[in-house]
Amino acid sequence: MIRARITVTLKNGVLDPQGKAIEGSLSALGFENVDSVRQGKVFDVELKNTSKSDAEQSLKAMCDQLLANTVIEDFSVTIIQAIDQ
Amino acid sequence: MIRARITVTLKNGVLDPQGKAIEGSLSALGFENVDSVRQGKVFDVELKNTSKSDAEQSLKAMCDQLLANTVIEDFSVTIIQAIDQ
Repeated sequence: MIRARITVTLKNGVLDPQGKAIEGSLSALGFENVDSVRQGKVFDVELKNTSKSDAEQSLKAMCDQLLANTVIEDFSVTIIQAIDQ
Repeated sequence: MIRARITVTLKNGVLDPQGKAIEGSLSALGFENVDSVRQGKVFDVELKNTSKSDAEQSLKAMCDQLLANTVIEDFSVTIIQAIDQ
């Protein structure tokens, strides 16, 4: 079994209104040192019956096809745990 | 300046309908090895005029007060970069 974490973040330069709203809320709560906040997504994916290298390839394909909008988002794939079956 | 990444994920046992929907979509796209998907959030935060230890404390407080619902979510804070001013 393979456990992986996919992180999808907005590319630099892409506006992030949600991040801006969080910045505002944090200031309002008294966190004065906050300079910027950008929000992204994580997906914790478990794969079965696959090797580590196949899994990496497959996870990248998932990002390209479904999980990330590669026009405005970057993604990174990290294999957290690989257990042989 | 401190750059940090906060990751907020659902606790084990908490239903994740969004993750389930992604599982379904991935199967429909032909990714047959997917066992489970759980979705979470990341926040990339930049802090200014603060030390690393103050920043860690402050980031944890932000999670408790705003970014995470600690009843159903776990969070982790990672300092990515600390640049002395």
